[in-house]
Amino acid sequence: MSQRYVLAIHGGAGTIAPSADRAAEEAYHAALRDATAAGQAVLAAGGKALDAAVAAVVALEDCPLFNAGRGSVYTSDAVHEMDASVMDGRTQAAGAVACVRNVRNPVVLARAVMEHSNCVLLTSDGAERFARERGIPFAPSEYFATKERLDQLHRAIARQSGAVLDHSGAADLQKDKSPINPDQKFGTVGAVALDRDGNLASAVSTGGLTNKKPGRIGDTPVIGAGCYANNQVAVAATGTGEYFIRAVAAYDIAARMNYGGATLEAAARATVFDRLNALGGSGGLIALDRDGNLATPFNTSGMYRAWVYEQEEIVTRIFL
Amino acid sequence: MSQRYVLAIHGGAGTIAPSADRAAEEAYHAALRDATAAGQAVLAAGGKALDAAVAAVVALEDCPLFNAGRGSVYTSDAVHEMDASVMDGRTQAAGAVACVRNVRNPVVLARAVMEHSNCVLLTSDGAERFARERGIPFAPSEYFATKERLDQLHRAIARQSGAVLDHSGAADLQKDKSPINPDQKFGTVGAVALDRDGNLASAVSTGGLTNKKPGRIGDTPVIGAGCYANNQVAVAATGTGEYFIRAVAAYDIAARMNYGGATLEAAARATVFDRLNALGGSGGLIALDRDGNLATPFNTSGMYRAWVYEQEEIVTRIFL
Repeated sequence: MSQRYVLAIHGGAGTIAPSADRAAEEAYHAALRDATAAGQAVLAAGGKALDAAVAAVVALEDCPLFNAGRGSVYTSDAVHEMDASVMDGRTQAAGAVACVRNVRNPVVLARAVMEHSNCVLLTSDGAERFARERGIPFAPSEYFATKERLDQLHRAIARQSGAVLDHSGAADLQKDKSPINPDQKFGTVGAVALDRDGNLASAVSTGGLTNKKPGRIGDTPVIGAGCYANNQVAVAATGTGEYFIRAVAAYDIAARMNYGGATLEAAARATVFDRLNALGGSGGLIALDRDGNLATPFNTSGMYRAWVYEQEEIVTRIFL
Repeated sequence: MSQRYVLAIHGGAGTIAPSADRAAEEAYHAALRDATAAGQAVLAAGGKALDAAVAAVVALEDCPLFNAGRGSVYTSDAVHEMDASVMDGRTQAAGAVACVRNVRNPVVLARAVMEHSNCVLLTSDGAERFARERGIPFAPSEYFATKERLDQLHRAIARQSGAVLDHSGAADLQKDKSPINPDQKFGTVGAVALDRDGNLASAVSTGGLTNKKPGRIGDTPVIGAGCYANNQVAVAATGTGEYFIRAVAAYDIAARMNYGGATLEAAARATVFDRLNALGGSGGLIALDRDGNLATPFNTSGMYRAWVYEQEEIVTRIFL
């Protein structure tokens, strides 16, 4: 085939902070470009969509700016419990992990679940045991730790206990240099890819929500909610996971296209602006179809995104 | 409203054993009748669809004949890890638990997650901690244990290690009195209900697969895969969970109806006989629409089912 390759990534959706400064914003753009380039390199060499999507997500997991892998948020127990999944559009095979601790790249483990277990979804201790059996790299808790995320946890706990007044909470936020309010950001990362053979794939990874209940699983490792791919469309979502699960958000786009004859753009917008809005869900998603059409709708004030088409330059976006 | 209530349940799908005897078969029919009656009592008193579906599933969990709650199968570590979920069609609220141990009625915990946490899906230690906080009843491991399930684990391990020849494995099966081959049975239980107010709900629960990897999560607690309800249709599935997850089976029916204009019967049959068969998945599901139409397709040789319409008798079925 002579399909032109396409790769798109996201680094989370959320509320724009009034304190955004240019240097911080540029750091995000640079990180998005680097992750896109990591996936692009796979596709440019004739590699598979799945390999490209995973490569891009690994780069996002390795970057402490994003809430996945290194830089993940903290649970209410002040530990990192991470979720990830992958789906290969060509075979509709899928793999996912939930609530894994100290796994350096959860998306790599999700792929190993798909390829080397007879399961789709593994959680917690069992998932970590499988990781050890497969020789998947672990990292100490300090590797994942960032001061910014710990501060977010303390702010979240303080707000919950009522110890911080609203205005002092807001003042606290002013100190944050991130161009997206980190306390209102749903920092899942994800990638969708279309390779030169015309195959699609999706990969997603997250640290979840700050101050989340231990054992809480969001939409990221739920196939059909945070991640879905067949060879018509690939979707990677980010947002208030519980609403994305109830909306079956990622598969909803595929179903609107397949059963309702919707275009990618119409399907993706209907899922975000009709279905998720009706439930009260916040966030966004990236969706890529087999013809290389890309939709990146979000109902928050910003979403970190980047994409590249073969023979074109990488584009990065945060706001509109 | 003056909607006539409907309740349907299933107790798993699978391969019919040649050794089926009439007494064992009648025990299943009686258990199915009892569970249906438990749900029916709620609806007859003017209760909600969600309450009725949960009541029926609790009865199935409490019966050791079915692979959910008491009578759950064993993991490869010879423990019980149970999954359950509920979804309320009226609000599209959902709750689910995965890999919980020693929780007497996992479906009751799933409902508590829906009603008393800000989560949809909790797993493992965190789910059990939430159960304790909520005062959800636990039971000792002996409560869940049955000799039949332990024998199944030993057969599964023996087959896996090659220590038992195929024909001696088959001979082993001949000794089993169950009308469905328990080694080939996907014993999730589930219920769908339509109440007099016209609201729909689904509830499902399972011990999973015999000899499953610890931490393995099947389709049962995955909203959209093993369980889905809106106020157009409610679905409860049972089968090889990994395929139901990849097929997003339960929501696929709702999407075929909503976006493709399919009838309930056509949608349910297409999901099981087209979509699941194409992937290689085995099992079945029960689906109930807002007009009281019921579909119970399965691509195995049997599925335990029962249903009741207001002012009619309870019907139980295992084979056709």
